[in-house]
Amino acid sequence: MTGFRVGVLGHGTVGAAFCATLPVHAARIERMTGLRPELSGVLTRSRGSFDEILEGSDLIVELIGGLEPAREYLLAAMRSGRHVVTANKQLLSHHGEELWDVARENGVQLRFEGAVAGVVPVIRVLQESLAGARIDRVHGIVNGTTNFVLSEMARTGADFASALAEAQRLGYAEADPSDDVNGRDAAAKMAIIARLAFETPVHIDQVRYEGIEAIRPDDLEYARDLGLGLKLIGTAERIGEDGISVRVYPAFLYPGHPLASVGGPFNAVTVESAEITEITMSGPGAGGPQTASAVLGDVISAMIPPASTPPATERLKIVTDVASAFYLYLEVADEPGVLAAVAEVLALQGVSVKSVVQKGLRDQARLVMVVHPVLESRFGVAMNLIAGLDVMRAPPRAIRVIEEEFG
Amino acid sequence: MTGFRVGVLGHGTVGAAFCATLPVHAARIERMTGLRPELSGVLTRSRGSFDEILEGSDLIVELIGGLEPAREYLLAAMRSGRHVVTANKQLLSHHGEELWDVARENGVQLRFEGAVAGVVPVIRVLQESLAGARIDRVHGIVNGTTNFVLSEMARTGADFASALAEAQRLGYAEADPSDDVNGRDAAAKMAIIARLAFETPVHIDQVRYEGIEAIRPDDLEYARDLGLGLKLIGTAERIGEDGISVRVYPAFLYPGHPLASVGGPFNAVTVESAEITEITMSGPGAGGPQTASAVLGDVISAMIPPASTPPATERLKIVTDVASAFYLYLEVADEPGVLAAVAEVLALQGVSVKSVVQKGLRDQARLVMVVHPVLESRFGVAMNLIAGLDVMRAPPRAIRVIEEEFG
Repeated sequence: MTGFRVGVLGHGTVGAAFCATLPVHAARIERMTGLRPELSGVLTRSRGSFDEILEGSDLIVELIGGLEPAREYLLAAMRSGRHVVTANKQLLSHHGEELWDVARENGVQLRFEGAVAGVVPVIRVLQESLAGARIDRVHGIVNGTTNFVLSEMARTGADFASALAEAQRLGYAEADPSDDVNGRDAAAKMAIIARLAFETPVHIDQVRYEGIEAIRPDDLEYARDLGLGLKLIGTAERIGEDGISVRVYPAFLYPGHPLASVGGPFNAVTVESAEITEITMSGPGAGGPQTASAVLGDVISAMIPPASTPPATERLKIVTDVASAFYLYLEVADEPGVLAAVAEVLALQGVSVKSVVQKGLRDQARLVMVVHPVLESRFGVAMNLIAGLDVMRAPPRAIRVIEEEFG
Repeated sequence: MTGFRVGVLGHGTVGAAFCATLPVHAARIERMTGLRPELSGVLTRSRGSFDEILEGSDLIVELIGGLEPAREYLLAAMRSGRHVVTANKQLLSHHGEELWDVARENGVQLRFEGAVAGVVPVIRVLQESLAGARIDRVHGIVNGTTNFVLSEMARTGADFASALAEAQRLGYAEADPSDDVNGRDAAAKMAIIARLAFETPVHIDQVRYEGIEAIRPDDLEYARDLGLGLKLIGTAERIGEDGISVRVYPAFLYPGHPLASVGGPFNAVTVESAEITEITMSGPGAGGPQTASAVLGDVISAMIPPASTPPATERLKIVTDVASAFYLYLEVADEPGVLAAVAEVLALQGVSVKSVVQKGLRDQARLVMVVHPVLESRFGVAMNLIAGLDVMRAPPRAIRVIEEEFG
């Protein structure tokens, strides 16, 4: 028996994505862990028995959401010695202490990366990587719906209702988006973040929250005049020696702030500590496949001994000739036909020009161009040919350009 | 006996910082783990015996750097059943497979977060959080010295030599910065990143690298005209079905790229995967206290059962009245004295105005201001008083502003 039986509770967006992704990665996970993960059962609204699934599983993944029966199932699974993985922010922000206590008492793992900020590894980093630092403050954009709506309002001048409708159309907002836009969803996540950052119990009812319903296009316009951008921010911070504040509120940020450039449905979290300055993590905060990937990361972690680097399971070739875009800097004679001569050499090697800047400088000129991606070997040939042109006044110089633009 | 004995090899910048930080956190770590960590010995160039330190330690932290005797010591420690933590990128990029094999064979943990990008949790996230995703590409700024030098050249127009001298003056470059500026330091880190991302062995000698010595102020100036910024980038990516490329090279980025805004001595890594889109992590990539914090996070992880959330050891107060800066939006009569009346109310409550924008609109005006941080309760009083002014044409509206600006 080398299988590792994973029972899944819930078959909504994340549950379905998890059930779809597990088989795709099963062979790779078996190479890494020596165990092949397999779905041992899926509990849906209409089908399956929790007790039977529990009996036949080594680990339980809870993706039902809400308080009950999710709480009851997780407690039962842990008390029967199973590791559990959940993405349930409501449950943890209400009953986290009880669940964490039961996990410790039973010596099982309770993992919950998917509960906060999707695949952005906030939980693991707060709980493990930063265990050696005294954290002073966490700022987060932890709700993708509101971040998309605010980005859209800023970009198009739309009002709140239109931007929300657009978010729903694109699948970034649910049919009932109340808990997203009023800040309650973010409040649940900030309660969990604050608990981990400050090692103190925090219940969602202790988090003050405001939403973005009252934001007007005007606000975004005036803010632009002041150099500010608007985000729904969650803050968890120390106040004095023995206090913390945990809150969610729309806030303006200056352009240099690490969260200012986080647009669209992305999430991001900045953790500040005197010892480490600050670290920032960003990425997709929701979405079935993304959250399922966080859940699967948790499942694999439960299958593998801690801090074990699995043997290298692949033997990929190391390729040396790859495609790059290039910036090309040429010092040339300032005479007619130079650009044409250079362009001809480039064209013969299949190098396509994206943009050109030419500046005269007495009897010389600087010709600076960016070319589209081309195999480096072919670009090298073109460079050698260009170096041989008699209009060149110095050896040509090239620097790579990374082409992709991100949202 | 409730102590956990940590033996430290090496007492350079990171070693000294680690020895300084461990006692500061010892009480907190004892509350979290039930074990009090203590320094059982420090091996320096002139003092201490490795065998004696090993004998008296539960875990060995290796901060000597270089290949030997670091390799020999780590192997001996693991073979004697000790967990080990290292920040040694050279060693792992040369002898990683041997070390990871020995860790697995002996059932001990080998942790190495500090080896790549300081406190930015690249290792843990690649190895654990993203174990459930098929990674397509990693782009990283993994050398803080070169990122500082390039930022400085772009900011001031300085040439490479002057910017490097400035980096040395500020402690961002070592006396001998050769391996930083020629790209070899980044190459070692990219070898480790590629190994973890693609589960394939990668030796530093398989990483092509170029440095930034040949970059001229001219390049940065022309690039600005083209809308580009320059970074020393490490790339590890899949090529075709069975290949990867791992390389380090100066490259231009468009402003929307997640690494484009990473300035000064910071490090950052972007991981791309079709399933998760991309996640980005950034923070201080080097520095004694920062790297020591990453090392301490590894030590604590080795002391604690996996995915165990320790009991809440603090009982901090949840504070509700905190200080905030505010944006204030007032619709007022367009008549003389309005600004003075508003300003007087604010001043009486100790609210200090940072900036004001006023726009006329027929017989009304919009008065938009940003005020410096003030307790929310006092600001609330001011808002109520302002609402009562007879020049007001609508209820005043306020949105918080996060004040800090980051480098």
